[in-house]
Amino acid sequence: MRAHDPIEHLIGLLAKLPGLGRRSARRAVLKMLMQPEQAMLPLAAALREAAAAVRPCRICGNLDDQDPCHICRDPQRDRSVICVVEGVAELWALERAHAHRGLYHVLGGTLSALGGMGPEDLSVQPLLSRIAEDKVEEVILALPATVDGATTAHWLGDRLRPSGVQVTRLAQGVPIGGALDVLDEGTLAAALKARRVV
Amino acid sequence: MRAHDPIEHLIGLLAKLPGLGRRSARRAVLKMLMQPEQAMLPLAAALREAAAAVRPCRICGNLDDQDPCHICRDPQRDRSVICVVEGVAELWALERAHAHRGLYHVLGGTLSALGGMGPEDLSVQPLLSRIAEDKVEEVILALPATVDGATTAHWLGDRLRPSGVQVTRLAQGVPIGGALDVLDEGTLAAALKARRVV
Ligand SMILES: [Zn+2]
Ligand SMILES: [Zn+2]
Repeated sequence: MRAHDPIEHLIGLLAKLPGLGRRSARRAVLKMLMQPEQAMLPLAAALREAAAAVRPCRICGNLDDQDPCHICRDPQRDRSVICVVEGVAELWALERAHAHRGLYHVLGGTLSALGGMGPEDLSVQPLLSRIAEDKVEEVILALPATVDGATTAHWLGDRLRPSGVQVTRLAQGVPIGGALDVLDEGTLAAALKARRVV
Repeated sequence: MRAHDPIEHLIGLLAKLPGLGRRSARRAVLKMLMQPEQAMLPLAAALREAAAAVRPCRICGNLDDQDPCHICRDPQRDRSVICVVEGVAELWALERAHAHRGLYHVLGGTLSALGGMGPEDLSVQPLLSRIAEDKVEEVILALPATVDGATTAHWLGDRLRPSGVQVTRLAQGVPIGGALDVLDEGTLAAALKARRVV
């Protein structure tokens, strides 16, 4: 084996991506090597462009090439409702479901004793500031239906209610233990529609 | 939607790779966006490096960053035995099985009336030249166990035998209809070991 083998190096990097094992990475590399100019260079350019352009939205935490993100800038969105999500994956899943016409807030995780996530690791103060400064009437807690998600929703509801905002959560309908970003879009939309006050 | 969304553009390119659907591509992009400098830029560099450095070996057709490839250059390999494979995927699969100590020849396909592959599309003349110029004693036809693969092996055997070389093929043991590059390595090694004269 050579000290640096560009094919093995590329396979190794691709194999680290979620959803791609070593076998799929090898097949992908082989397919791209059949037409490097058409397949590899555009992908390399797209990666460089995304790495340079994409950053977290200063308002909601979404990842976008605009800051504030295109959702926070959109004059059509209902600014009186903020949907709180664990991460960007869940925000994108809700957007794909076309179920929410308000804004978002990325919490950055859920409380987890095992995972070492405490209140100070979550984006709560920025959320409280948004509620205080904007005319926010409702905060929808779209957190995962796990023990940590429920704990976080309960704790966060207690933190938010003194501001006078209505706090709701997704209807039961999200399967217990289910991650939001792999749910089918119909279930997500239904759960959002049937949300209830906590 | 923006005219050009770098995130959607990147997801679209990744989703085209074999083994990665749109959902996996989205998860991969999201994971990379969490640490663009550590994940995206190295992958972009590896793609550019591979696209620039990798080319087909002028002798055997393997894809490598050296030409002739590292197998053709290797003085430890048995130059009297050439293993004929349909494509580079199958060559790599046999290498992973550590089953063949000779050289390779990438045919570039199999005869296929439906696929529009005729004798002129296969790398046969270069193989005949190698047999004539080097001291090749055996050609192993490691072609897929499909109708097209068997047709190709039969036809190619007839073309090669006049040169006096011994023509063998993989033992039955490769499942009918099975693609070589997804076989487990033990089966591949056993089939190669039990090869027989055709
Ligand atoms: Zn935003
Ligand atoms: Zn070679």
